[in-house]
Order: sequence, then structure tokens, then C-alpha cells
Amino acid sequence: MRMPDIIAKKRDGGQLDQLEIRQLVTDYTNDLIPDYQMAAFLMAVFLQGMTYEETAAMTMAMAESGKCVDLSAISGIKVDKHSTGGVADTTTLILAPLVAAAGVPVAKMSGRGLGFTGGTIDKLESIPGFRTTLTQREFSDNLKRYGVALTGQSADVAPADGKIYALRDVTATVESIPLIASSVMSKKIAAGADKILLDVKVGSGAFMKDLGAAVELAGTMVKIGEIVGRETKAVLTSMEEPLGLNIGNSLEVLEAIDVLSGQGKEALREVSLTLGAHMLNMAGREKSQAAARKLLEKYLDDGTALRKFAEFINAQHGDPAIIEHRELLPQAVCQQQVFGGASGFIEKIDVAKLGYSAAVLGAGRTYKGQQIDLAAGIVMQCGIGDYIEPGRSIAVLYTNDPMKLSAAEQLLRQALTIGRAKIKRPQLILGVVDKDGYHNL
Amino acid sequence: MRMPDIIAKKRDGGQLDQLEIRQLVTDYTNDLIPDYQMAAFLMAVFLQGMTYEETAAMTMAMAESGKCVDLSAISGIKVDKHSTGGVADTTTLILAPLVAAAGVPVAKMSGRGLGFTGGTIDKLESIPGFRTTLTQREFSDNLKRYGVALTGQSADVAPADGKIYALRDVTATVESIPLIASSVMSKKIAAGADKILLDVKVGSGAFMKDLGAAVELAGTMVKIGEIVGRETKAVLTSMEEPLGLNIGNSLEVLEAIDVLSGQGKEALREVSLTLGAHMLNMAGREKSQAAARKLLEKYLDDGTALRKFAEFINAQHGDPAIIEHRELLPQAVCQQQVFGGASGFIEKIDVAKLGYSAAVLGAGRTYKGQQIDLAAGIVMQCGIGDYIEPGRSIAVLYTNDPMKLSAAEQLLRQALTIGRAKIKRPQLILGVVDKDGYHNL
Repeated sequence: MRMPDIIAKKRDGGQLDQLEIRQLVTDYTNDLIPDYQMAAFLMAVFLQGMTYEETAAMTMAMAESGKCVDLSAISGIKVDKHSTGGVADTTTLILAPLVAAAGVPVAKMSGRGLGFTGGTIDKLESIPGFRTTLTQREFSDNLKRYGVALTGQSADVAPADGKIYALRDVTATVESIPLIASSVMSKKIAAGADKILLDVKVGSGAFMKDLGAAVELAGTMVKIGEIVGRETKAVLTSMEEPLGLNIGNSLEVLEAIDVLSGQGKEALREVSLTLGAHMLNMAGREKSQAAARKLLEKYLDDGTALRKFAEFINAQHGDPAIIEHRELLPQAVCQQQVFGGASGFIEKIDVAKLGYSAAVLGAGRTYKGQQIDLAAGIVMQCGIGDYIEPGRSIAVLYTNDPMKLSAAEQLLRQALTIGRAKIKRPQLILGVVDKDGYHNL
Repeated sequence: MRMPDIIAKKRDGGQLDQLEIRQLVTDYTNDLIPDYQMAAFLMAVFLQGMTYEETAAMTMAMAESGKCVDLSAISGIKVDKHSTGGVADTTTLILAPLVAAAGVPVAKMSGRGLGFTGGTIDKLESIPGFRTTLTQREFSDNLKRYGVALTGQSADVAPADGKIYALRDVTATVESIPLIASSVMSKKIAAGADKILLDVKVGSGAFMKDLGAAVELAGTMVKIGEIVGRETKAVLTSMEEPLGLNIGNSLEVLEAIDVLSGQGKEALREVSLTLGAHMLNMAGREKSQAAARKLLEKYLDDGTALRKFAEFINAQHGDPAIIEHRELLPQAVCQQQVFGGASGFIEKIDVAKLGYSAAVLGAGRTYKGQQIDLAAGIVMQCGIGDYIEPGRSIAVLYTNDPMKLSAAEQLLRQALTIGRAKIKRPQLILGVVDKDGYHNL
């Protein structure tokens, strides 16, 4: 089929078959289809949608456009956790050692942050010596020996997704559920996971602003997993305020250490335990959520998880001494306390704006490849429902560039909506989507 | 506004303002916007539409992207006629001398055919010596002296339209009413017409397959004309069968001579008279359709129009002897009579397929810049409602490439649907669209 005919079919709401989708993705990856035709196609998909079958076909075509990791030599069921992205979401750093401590192998391929704050790879790079690029051999050896290995996503994993994503970014075709779903799932499948656990964020700091859209996205990814034979489950969690207190790279490593030491902000611990328990269940470790959770709580509280974290850091050439000596992590030259302006209860937090404030301080990238300040960021000292007033400390800003402080402080203040009425904290775990649909918890 | 934001606005059904549209068109023409962003925008327009105001703004931006012809030195109201394109539609060759004979200046800029058969320029080039490229001075002099001048559309007229059309062609975004309307109107406006008369074709051989779509397209163009201050009117005419009998370049010149001599196929004469009478009325010559039509009938029947045609040919360096000596026009080496296969009444004609048959014989282009065979084509000897049977001659094929005859004959047969019931000829003039809306006649 000629490309204009494929575009026209989708434009008119038709359904493409597997072969058409595979040809489209393969030819585009190999530069046989020009960007302008792909752009017209993507806009047609944005406005006309895709069926689950089409989305699954697109996912597999993108996954198979590059190298697919084979983890079959590693015994056990490999469950990959993926978050759709939030602010102060450092669950991966907590879950990797925690789940591995429970005997479930964690083979993780992570990306750099493209949004406001750094990605898992950026956070880990704030640990002196830590190597985020492992050879296939090292990855496999570490996984066998320590039960946990983490590496940066290489360019030959799902290259079609990378090329299509770059085009979507400049043609206003990012926010499409089938396109988001196939992008996420193609990378997870290429990375070799047997099963996939998704953390779909909902709220002002998330891609999905409301529960309906989040359930739709989660349902699409679960359905793709079903069609392509990789069991997929999604937990929907709130992103109406930062998940942890710390926003920034080394700051988030510090908070991960807190949680792994049985401390840290309750919400971050709670989401980590919920996701971890699902990972254990999916891997066949413990039958019930309750039992799995109990085991993980124990590992957080008795130091087992923290020891595994030290082992993991050591295995990837990082310095585990950072756990005891936090000053070994990058330190910001400037620290500035922010105090409350008006009096009242925090009614709402514009989490995206808060993330932007951290990015301004240097914690994130505003363009690809930008250098980030690993020590920069924000430590929040308040959340939704808290009463603040002039003189009450609400946050500390960290940066190596004092020129950024005032802009960041202004953004932080704008991100907080102060009201008269005492507000309840938003519900944290909003439900689960599995092959039987959405379950409100 | 950033281009992705403009795309997103249209994608979400928003309305762009004049400045945004002008920036879009200007920047694209100047290669400041890449094709892939324009392609995404065009698909968004295809699926979300544009308001009349947006379409008018796009029209003016495209018209003003290049040279705008100034005809103000020519006295009288210049009315430009434009057909949305049909098969055996040679009305321009008839109307140019006919309307000029009635004292209304005809300043015409025509294109080459992109579809199945040649355009007006191709047809005129079959007249030995005829020059279809005039300098601005020659154009203006001829117009003053003879009341008629015709030239090929130069590349500097509405270049934005040319560039956007080429992109639409390969991104499945051609069949969009606001995009078609702005494309047509931008060229007419740039060509300097005071008023515009549109012949919107409806039926199997037309771009608009049904009356509803044709009324919508016509209404959009009339509205654009109103907004930008160039009175526009549209006549809707049937294209369920070829308008004349002759399909092909020199063949259509011959049929134009027939009509200009008071003969020719009734439908072609009728549409020419209807359009011509509207042109006269719009130019302020004769108050009523009836009076204008009577005048034009007289000029067809008493030789005035034919004499003007000879004068027009002579003025553009062509040989007017072709009128008396038809053999001076390009002649096809092969002529083949086609006879009826089955017995029955012609119920339906797939006019597009018939046009394709003529193109196969050499009469049209299947790619831009392709050389065409000016002598090639089809002379039809039957129409809807006619009874045909084996042995009854239905058409004559003309070509210089005998290898093409059997494929063309097969297409021609496929284009005819033969049935048992006697069918009435389809209504020829389907109505008029002016600023007061659609008038069924």
C-alpha cells in the first residue's frame, strides 16, 4: 500500500492491519518514509485513534525495530516497573534493591530525564563512581550475582520509538493515548521484561491530569501486554503533590536512602511498598498483596533493603559510603530557606510548576543533552492541607547558580494555592488496572 | 506563537487569527517551517476544518505570497471564470472569445492539466504557433486591443499555494473543503480578477461526488470572496458524463470550434451559455440572465464569436486557418472505432475512468511535467440513456501509440454501466450559489 493511502485510511477512521503498521514503522526507521508523511499520519492517529490491535502491532514493530534484550538465561520471572513520570518520584531507586532483596531479579533499563527533573540515570550519576552504562556481559553477570542490574537505555533499543517520539515532539502529536502507550510498551518489551508493572501518575504533576484519561492509558497498555503475551498491570497513583519531599538528583538519592532505612516521607514509602508488593506477586513471590507487603516492610525496617542498595552501588562501581556519609554526594553552594507569604491552608499544588522551579535551579533539562546540576533542587517542607503563615519555613532551595534563586522562588510560590478551608490530603493510591479492568481500591 | 502551539490549537478545534495564519503561510513559503510541521497542520485542518474567516485569511496570505497581477489599467469589470475540473470541459476555449465578443474583457491565467486530461494551456498548444506565455506587456496590450488575452500561470503567482498543494498531494490532505477553496481562490485573486465566477462540477467525473459537498465548497468560496471583497458566484453543473463529446487536447479545440460555430454537443453549448450569461451580468453587461443569454446565442449563431476566436488565436501567434482546415491540428496516427458489447441502456458513466482511458491514450499526464500526445483522446458517440448494442459504434479512440489501444478500450468499456431500464439524462445545471446561498434552478 502506498503511504498516502495508509494515511488516508487512518484519516478516514479506518483500521490498519499488522502488515501495514509494520511496513510503516520499518520504512520510517530506515528513512524510506519522509518525516512529512509520518507527521500527517501521526496527526491522523491523534484525531482518529487506534484500536488495541493496531496499538499492539505498532508496539511490536517499534520494539523489533532494534535490539531486543534476551533475559531468558536469568532464572526467575523478570518484572519491569515503569512510571509515566512525576515529580519527586524516586521509587525506582527504592524498588530496585528492595525487590531484589526479596529474591526477585530486577533487570532495569532506564532513561535520562526529558522533563523537569532528571531521570533515574541522572540521579544515580550523582553517586561518585557509579557506572550507568554496563556491557551486556556486565549487566548479565551483575544480575546473576546480585539479583539487580541497571543500565542506561542504549540507542539501539526501539530506535523507531526514538525517531517517532522526536517527530511527535515538534508536531503537537505527543498527547495521544495509543502513541504514548505504544512508546512506553515498545521500550519495556525490547528491554526483555517478562511482565510489566506500570505506575500511571494522575494529577497536576502528571501527563494524565484526570483519572478517566489515566484509566484509559493504563487500560490500553494492559491490553497491549495481553495481545503480545507480556502480562501487564497498572497502579494508578496521585501526582497532585510531589511524591517525596526532595526534588532533584542527589536530593532524591538521599530520600531513597531515608526510605530504605525505614524512614522518609510516608507517601513515597507507601507507593514503593504497593508497587513492590505487586512486583513480588507478579513474579510469583508471595500469593497475596498483604504477605508481600509485610515482607517488604520488614526489609525496609530491618536494614536488608539498605544493605542490598549498598551492594548494588558497589557492583556498579559507585561508592556505597554515601549511605553513611551523605556529604560525599554533590553539594550545592547555595541553600535558601523559603518562608510562607500569606496565611492559610495549602489547597492545591501545581506540581508541574514546582518541577519547573527545580529545573530552573539546575535539577532538570529544558533541552536534550543539557548539562544538569546534580546537587540542585528543592526540599519541600509542606504539602496539601498544611497550614502555612509568614515566618513558617515551606521549602529549601539548592543550587550552584545563585542567579536562579529568585526566579525559582517565585515559581515555587506561584505553584502553591493558599485558601481558608482545611483540605484533606488527596487519596494516594487510586486503583489498579489489570486484564479485568479498573479496580477502585 | 510557536509552530507546535499553532498546530495544537487547530488540532484541538481552535480558531487561528489572521496574524497566525499569515505567519504560517509566509514562513512556510520562505522555508522557515519544515514540511513535517506543515503536514501535521494540514491533517489537523483536514479533520477539524477552518472557519470562513480562517479560510479567507489563508487565501489572502497565499495570494500575497507572490506577485499579484494589477489589471486596474484595463477598463471594465474583469470577471474570471474557473472550473473545478471535469472531463471534456472545454468551456474556457468557448467563453474566452464569446464573452470578449460581447465587450467584456477576458484576462485569463490558466494552468496545465494535472488530472486525466490536459488543461486549457495544453489544449491551446495544439494550435500551431500559439503562444501560451505572454509578457506582462503583451498580455496587457492584447487585452486592450482584442478584449481577450490568455497566459500560462507563472511560478510567481501564489507560490505558497504551489508549495502547499505539492505537500497535500503526498500527505492525503487534498480533499479538504477549506484547503481546496483557499487554493482556488488564492490563484484567482492573485491573477487580478475583480469578480470570480466558479463552475463547480458535481458527479462521478468531478472532485465533488455529491451535491451537498459541492454546495459546501461553492458556499465556502463565495464566502471567501465576500470577506476579501471580490464578488464570487458559483454555478453547479453535472459531471455524471463528459460535458462535450471530445476528450483530448486538439479534439477539444475542434469541439470548441463546433460550439463557436453554433453547433456542437448541446450540453457543452448550454453550460457555456449559462456561464457566459453570468459573466456578462457580473460585469454589468445586460441586466438579466435571459437578455445576456440571448446576446451570446446570437454571437454563437451568427459567427461573431468564431471571428473573435480567430482574432484571439492570431493575436497569440497561432494559425487561425485551423478553423477552416482542421487537419492543421495534430493528427493521431491510429484511430480505432469501439463498438458496443452488450445490449442495453447506458445507466451510468464512470467519468473519471473515461478520463483515465484518455490519459492512457496519451491525452493527459500521470505525473507532473510528463509529455502529452496532443492528438490523442476519445470522441464519445454515446451518453447516459442511449441504447447500445453489439455493432453500434460507441466511441473512437485516437492515439499515436497503438500499444495503448487495448488498455484504453478496456477502461472505456469498464466506465459504462449498461442496464435494462431507459434512464433520463441527468440534470445539467444544478443550481447557483451566491451570497444569499444555494438556489436550486
